[in-house]
Amino acid sequence: MELDNVIDAVLRNIFIEIEASGRHVHVTKEQAVKLFGHGLTPDRPLSQPGQWVAKERVAVIGPKGEFKNVAVLGPERNEGQVEISLTDGRTLGIQPPVRASGSVENSPGAVLKGPCGEVRLPQGVIAAQRHIHITPTDAARFGVKDKQIVKLQTYTDRPLVFEDVLVRVSKDYATRVHLDIDEANACGYKMGDLGRILS
Amino acid sequence: MELDNVIDAVLRNIFIEIEASGRHVHVTKEQAVKLFGHGLTPDRPLSQPGQWVAKERVAVIGPKGEFKNVAVLGPERNEGQVEISLTDGRTLGIQPPVRASGSVENSPGAVLKGPCGEVRLPQGVIAAQRHIHITPTDAARFGVKDKQIVKLQTYTDRPLVFEDVLVRVSKDYATRVHLDIDEANACGYKMGDLGRILS
Repeated sequence: MELDNVIDAVLRNIFIEIEASGRHVHVTKEQAVKLFGHGLTPDRPLSQPGQWVAKERVAVIGPKGEFKNVAVLGPERNEGQVEISLTDGRTLGIQPPVRASGSVENSPGAVLKGPCGEVRLPQGVIAAQRHIHITPTDAARFGVKDKQIVKLQTYTDRPLVFEDVLVRVSKDYATRVHLDIDEANACGYKMGDLGRILS
Repeated sequence: MELDNVIDAVLRNIFIEIEASGRHVHVTKEQAVKLFGHGLTPDRPLSQPGQWVAKERVAVIGPKGEFKNVAVLGPERNEGQVEISLTDGRTLGIQPPVRASGSVENSPGAVLKGPCGEVRLPQGVIAAQRHIHITPTDAARFGVKDKQIVKLQTYTDRPLVFEDVLVRVSKDYATRVHLDIDEANACGYKMGDLGRILS
């Protein structure tokens, strides 16, 4: 084992890579057909296995403003969802609740507009609760369980300790911290920055 | 002393009120005359004694975008300055360094546009370093000194501990934590929320 590999293995036992999620949309197959005339087309893969950015883009329209050209993530889901930051919410005139992805009950809606049509989501606009995707192996190593709430120290330009970080364990995940853009900016995140779960 | 007063006094010995600073501009007298045809006119006071929001507003223009109707704070200063969040920087196409207010050396510039003319700031666009304005009395009580860097626990919807919080002591201040909008959103700040300096 070369020294670089040893260092890498040690670091991965202490730190977790952070990623910042920009505003994005999830749609159902039916919604994709309405918006684009067909299902989603993969463009480039995301770090989470099986997840990708679609070639298709949508406008997200709220009562006070809109964002054009918003990323759509695939594959299609069972329910439409819009993930934005609280700053984005101000621009749109929508107050998103802070929720785990998929928890959209009683959240506000928005209008999606694609080249072939519009979809009015009655609900689904949320700010994603900061979270850690983690494999069962890494979860055992870090001593954390699915749905546990942990604190995360960031090693970033404007360091801070995030509380209320949701742990999500699955063998289908790659181990990564996901922050929204407000959170990423608040800690001065740059690509490749690391975090550490505090015990 | 009524119970409410006692409780209030105890709380003020433990917590500091947080305020979120939206994007805003400081201008010199000369710049105000160019932009508005006259000096700044006070509209409403800010929490810091002697500081106020002006009736006048400006557009802030960057290479990639602009914000219209940006608040201008008075009184006039010796140098123009634009305080934005890192999120705002993305919109404008400007990467502001994180700096204490007034530290604008080698920071990027921007164009300000008012009803009477434009001012090209050669430098002065910063993201304000998170900071605590504190009176000498409160500084002694909390055991902190001017220019000290402290950690601040927020008691907010998305609690976190900010590191690298700059303490600024002056008898001319009111004791308040100042966050930018990225930071305020990252911790789920609402008006009236409190923070606590960690020893």
